[in-house]
Amino acid sequence: MKIPEVFRIEVENSARNLSRLMDIFAGHNVGVEGLQTISKCQKKTLWELTVEIEEDSLDTIFEGLEKDPRIKVMGRSDRVFTRHRGGKIQVVSKVPIESQEELRDIYTPGVARVCLAIQKEPSLANTLTNKSKTVAIVTNGTAILGLGNIGAVAGLPVMEGKAALFHRFAGLSGVPILIENQDPQKIIDAIEAIAPSFGAIQLEDIRAPECFEIESELIERLNIPVLHDDQHGTAVVALAALLSATKAVGKNLKESVVGQVGLGTAGIGISRLLLAYGARQVLGTDLSEDALKRLESLGGKRANTLDELMRDADIVVATTGVKGLIKPETVRPGHLILALTNPEPEIEPEEAIARGACFAADGKSVNNVLGFPGLFKGVLDRKATKFEEHMLISAAQTIHKMAPEGQLVPNALNTEVHEAVAASVQQSAPGSEK
Amino acid sequence: MKIPEVFRIEVENSARNLSRLMDIFAGHNVGVEGLQTISKCQKKTLWELTVEIEEDSLDTIFEGLEKDPRIKVMGRSDRVFTRHRGGKIQVVSKVPIESQEELRDIYTPGVARVCLAIQKEPSLANTLTNKSKTVAIVTNGTAILGLGNIGAVAGLPVMEGKAALFHRFAGLSGVPILIENQDPQKIIDAIEAIAPSFGAIQLEDIRAPECFEIESELIERLNIPVLHDDQHGTAVVALAALLSATKAVGKNLKESVVGQVGLGTAGIGISRLLLAYGARQVLGTDLSEDALKRLESLGGKRANTLDELMRDADIVVATTGVKGLIKPETVRPGHLILALTNPEPEIEPEEAIARGACFAADGKSVNNVLGFPGLFKGVLDRKATKFEEHMLISAAQTIHKMAPEGQLVPNALNTEVHEAVAASVQQSAPGSEK
Repeated sequence: MKIPEVFRIEVENSARNLSRLMDIFAGHNVGVEGLQTISKCQKKTLWELTVEIEEDSLDTIFEGLEKDPRIKVMGRSDRVFTRHRGGKIQVVSKVPIESQEELRDIYTPGVARVCLAIQKEPSLANTLTNKSKTVAIVTNGTAILGLGNIGAVAGLPVMEGKAALFHRFAGLSGVPILIENQDPQKIIDAIEAIAPSFGAIQLEDIRAPECFEIESELIERLNIPVLHDDQHGTAVVALAALLSATKAVGKNLKESVVGQVGLGTAGIGISRLLLAYGARQVLGTDLSEDALKRLESLGGKRANTLDELMRDADIVVATTGVKGLIKPETVRPGHLILALTNPEPEIEPEEAIARGACFAADGKSVNNVLGFPGLFKGVLDRKATKFEEHMLISAAQTIHKMAPEGQLVPNALNTEVHEAVAASVQQSAPGSEK
Repeated sequence: MKIPEVFRIEVENSARNLSRLMDIFAGHNVGVEGLQTISKCQKKTLWELTVEIEEDSLDTIFEGLEKDPRIKVMGRSDRVFTRHRGGKIQVVSKVPIESQEELRDIYTPGVARVCLAIQKEPSLANTLTNKSKTVAIVTNGTAILGLGNIGAVAGLPVMEGKAALFHRFAGLSGVPILIENQDPQKIIDAIEAIAPSFGAIQLEDIRAPECFEIESELIERLNIPVLHDDQHGTAVVALAALLSATKAVGKNLKESVVGQVGLGTAGIGISRLLLAYGARQVLGTDLSEDALKRLESLGGKRANTLDELMRDADIVVATTGVKGLIKPETVRPGHLILALTNPEPEIEPEEAIARGACFAADGKSVNNVLGFPGLFKGVLDRKATKFEEHMLISAAQTIHKMAPEGQLVPNALNTEVHEAVAASVQQSAPGSEK
């Protein structure tokens, strides 16, 4: 598995030395993702290099670097770890507590009036507490990023990351909830028990097929929105990218047959949303019979083989986790291909284009950060009790519309995008996407 | 039940008019707790008055105020409600998220390295996430303040208040967890399931006897500290007050028989801590046979009647919730009495003193805010897996030592007190209190 690594490397000043350094990485087939000057003196420069690298090839790279006398590895940088030190989130008081009066107003005895007001009229909890802006970010750690079943606590940095993004882009309070259990019913029961604490529930990095049961049963049991981000958040951003891509090449998604390669968490989410959006047909392939049945139950159709899917689909979306799965010779002229597996796609975009695809992209830009902050803010602002497909579609259309010319999606750091997504979810009407 | 009310009242400028206003409240037997000028013009002043008032006597007071033409009620102030508007806490990002580099470091792909580091060495979650500074504040809403079983969501303002105080006085992140369920086993299971999310668990406003089962079973099942604040937080502050009171009158707690009147949540907590501290004997009374057995199982002794307790005890602590329960004629010369029921004690201190008590106080100053922030900071800084009695005793001694001359406890707004409590919990050694 590839992991991001940060090196600090001292190089004698000379343009040639820098290119030598790049050569060493290139020689190990390691792409440099970032290069920054940390300090520079007359003779030497300290560079910080970020690379994506196979974990077990680290030693070889080290050796390669140390052979060159003009290059000195000062160590792996702890930049990422430094940013995590002490955690990325915290709960803070929004009210000053400096006087007895303030203390007595926000705690006993003043708080009693507020409790009684909520007891009398429970909806007042939405305005007199932070509940309606609080989202539980729930994981059992079975599908953390691309890392697999590493456990819920090991996944906490991802959950804190999501909470930090909730705050930054939507002003929401994300609360990581870690459940070290793989039994769906235990997870459902635990979340149901604590659900009154929250305005909404985000399920995160829970593996298939348990994720489907957990999500659907919680939606049934709870009267607050529940969303499995790996399914629907990803689907929203994928649909936005597809809207941008089809527009760029003059295709119409509603008249297209989409082939969904891989019907795991993301694949099922994307298929469901494409069908709700009105794609003419969604064909799917997967190794699991259950996954194919799940697609059929949503209104999609199974393709018997990947070759058959490639033959019959106008648009191909791949979310398999399998590098190079799509053989270039199966690409048809006019295909639109999104090969979303990170960091190495099912087919390299250049290869697909070379075979006649009218458009091809990988998953680098399809980042779910674009979706979830606005999706949750919108559904909470709307006081809706669940996410509905028109909200997701409206969000996808908004993300698509805000993509700059020539790009599939807008910059995730653009606060306006998140505000627009939230507004579109809040205002979307059932059927408005048709 | 008395509740705090805030009035905004416009009065024509004249010292006499203000005393007329005070007279009206005094005439209704309502004590004014606070008086503040909101605005003043040449002729009139707008006052804000905070009073503790019987809820059902509000209308009568209004009528009384409206009869006087020099006084105009501008309405009840929403000061308390304004301070609650939008909630009192929020989760914020501690890291900046302004560049792609920052985004990629704190979320994907950078976060993967941190997850893997924690997977390999789970204790790294203590430094690379906020987990070890996060305390779940769990309630089922069955004993919210003095308000009773009003439900967990109605109790959320109290839990947010505690979270705000955790932040203000200990830099900890308090997360309200609301469970609308009265079955102890369901609560225990739910908390156990989500416990990996937290560094410690604070149980709050859960009624007796369920609170005892919930706390003791969670302590057994979990490897993080669990503390029911209404028992032990209150006990710590009560012990601090007793240390101050005994010192003031030259008594020695370890040579005294303490009579604990009322063996509910607070009464059992106080009895347990007094026995651990080394009080010579703890006698107790309660209407519940189970409560008396609980006291005996802790090493205390039942008194058959309240009269018997008053006869045999040197020190009397009352936590019954019953105003005026202690008959003045049962007070013996030399009694030290803490009648802690708020807002109206089991015996008025003046009455007790008049009957020869050497010291008497009510519960106004015994505020658990003095305890829990430092208790949790200390136990987490110590990386202890549970609270132990020597930590609670050490905290009580610290609170006592920091009380100014002539007061039972120090000011809860004094940050140094909380720091000292935390340090004493962190450094306390088993047996050090003896």
